[in-house]
Amino acid sequence: MKRFVPSHELLPRVEAGDMAAIARLLSRAESGAAECREALGAVYSRAGRSHVIGITGVPGSGKSTLVSVLATRLRAAGRKVGIIAIDPSSPYSGGSIMGDRIRMQDLAADEGIYIRSMATRGAQGGMARATLDSVDILDVAGFDTIVIETVGVGQDEVEIANASHTTVVVSPPGLGDEIQAIKAGILEIADLHVVSKSDKPDANRTVIDLKQMLTLGLSMEGLAQKDRWHAPVLPVSAYQAAGFDELVSALGRHKAFLDRSPAGEARRIRNAEFRLLKTAEDLLRLRFRENSAGRKADLAARLAARQISPYAAGEQLLDGAAPEAAP
Amino acid sequence: MKRFVPSHELLPRVEAGDMAAIARLLSRAESGAAECREALGAVYSRAGRSHVIGITGVPGSGKSTLVSVLATRLRAAGRKVGIIAIDPSSPYSGGSIMGDRIRMQDLAADEGIYIRSMATRGAQGGMARATLDSVDILDVAGFDTIVIETVGVGQDEVEIANASHTTVVVSPPGLGDEIQAIKAGILEIADLHVVSKSDKPDANRTVIDLKQMLTLGLSMEGLAQKDRWHAPVLPVSAYQAAGFDELVSALGRHKAFLDRSPAGEARRIRNAEFRLLKTAEDLLRLRFRENSAGRKADLAARLAARQISPYAAGEQLLDGAAPEAAP
Repeated sequence: MKRFVPSHELLPRVEAGDMAAIARLLSRAESGAAECREALGAVYSRAGRSHVIGITGVPGSGKSTLVSVLATRLRAAGRKVGIIAIDPSSPYSGGSIMGDRIRMQDLAADEGIYIRSMATRGAQGGMARATLDSVDILDVAGFDTIVIETVGVGQDEVEIANASHTTVVVSPPGLGDEIQAIKAGILEIADLHVVSKSDKPDANRTVIDLKQMLTLGLSMEGLAQKDRWHAPVLPVSAYQAAGFDELVSALGRHKAFLDRSPAGEARRIRNAEFRLLKTAEDLLRLRFRENSAGRKADLAARLAARQISPYAAGEQLLDGAAPEAAP
Repeated sequence: MKRFVPSHELLPRVEAGDMAAIARLLSRAESGAAECREALGAVYSRAGRSHVIGITGVPGSGKSTLVSVLATRLRAAGRKVGIIAIDPSSPYSGGSIMGDRIRMQDLAADEGIYIRSMATRGAQGGMARATLDSVDILDVAGFDTIVIETVGVGQDEVEIANASHTTVVVSPPGLGDEIQAIKAGILEIADLHVVSKSDKPDANRTVIDLKQMLTLGLSMEGLAQKDRWHAPVLPVSAYQAAGFDELVSALGRHKAFLDRSPAGEARRIRNAEFRLLKTAEDLLRLRFRENSAGRKADLAARLAARQISPYAAGEQLLDGAAPEAAP
């Protein structure tokens, strides 16, 4: 029978780049088991070396293809690349949709590339605490660049900016007005804009449109600050393998900008605040599940019967959720 | 100078259907001000009479048009209709995107129809606590039917099922495979399926596809339960004003089903649990903002410097967030 290896014993093997140990610790982080928390704390204290790139964009923008070509390029330059692909999941079945990720399996034979698909939890929404832990695990395992690819709908699309050092927003050529309007919010989070499928005839139009929108945004801010990053718009074609040198170079420039400017420190603080809130929310949900199932059912029943107000019930649940409260 | 009217004084005016008082209490609910909490508790205890309909579907499916025609029909049948339209907002600017809601202003002259646009908060994601409070306010103000229209991307698309009695999923004709896959999760939440733009040539194909998918889902469950609702698929054309009689009738049948079956009670409990969690999460965020700004900044700084683990910081924040803890 296989012995259960405690998470802290997996840690040295993860740091040595042992693929099986990495997979195991990632699974434990995803499960949220209390047993791995101390080990993940140790992982966190040792992490911080990798360049974390968040990639988002509407479904069909060609993110997965872009990520696989980018990973190959970085790999050819001697870098180890970790990829975390976040899939939406059915709210009830909990299964994840794979779609065109299949092609990424070409990459999977290389030990210098590690790919992990993670399901987002439907009930929670947004970037999961487990995703943030997974980045740290790949970081201490020696991956130089870690790419988080979101599915590009909903909450994780904007939250990716709080989980990465460099956020890349991918736009396909010729988006309709409607999608553009929805996307308006995510334009602001981009450190780099990529117009994918730049071999398509209307790609140049999209490049021009995006640049105009960005210029408008800048002039609305009044004066452009000097110590400020100006997000470039990069046409890229995975099909023609064009534009990737410029993309790799822009990623490096943004990393260097963060390293030398106060904006980098501000971003680290902002990301830490996000992580703090995400972890606290995750712990809150865990406490609900573990300790207060009966209490929750009782409050929900009284709420359904309108015998208590939502605020009073919420306060009671919150205070009862703290471990120092009487059971 | 205009006197500040305490929220509990607004309540009798809201119950009398005073439009200005309704608008004011809705704004306070949206702001989350502590002052209105007691009044909202009183509102909650008196609510529960309206039929709450959630309408979701991908952007471009014609939800807003459907809602405005449906509202006109219900109004013609003598019902008062409240509409809550949820818009996505930019994560930083906080502004909401209105798009094609303009046409709804045609309805706004009628006192028997009340329309309210609410921004979703980017940082929180999903159905907001304020939306749930707003439903109650319109309920006690005498609106017989309350329609919540989501934008149809992200978390609120699935959470709408936990905020409504009847969930309507709108599908436009001829959706591509990709969108279908993403939508798979929300098929399960539909009590009613509407295929919009049924005057289009490929609408019938979409009706057949949806029915097949639903039949497949049923057979996978093994045996169909007797006391179970089978979601109908209804072709509707706002352009030709066709299919609305069937839609109104199906909405009524679902309401009657909930009223007489154990499924209705189960749903009330499920919705109450959702509300409990949403309210508790909202209160948790509020406590962060109000009481522990300094504490949060300190924890985030230590986290950014990797002097503390996310779990330890999260636990400290949670426990410090409880009001009985020392400051």
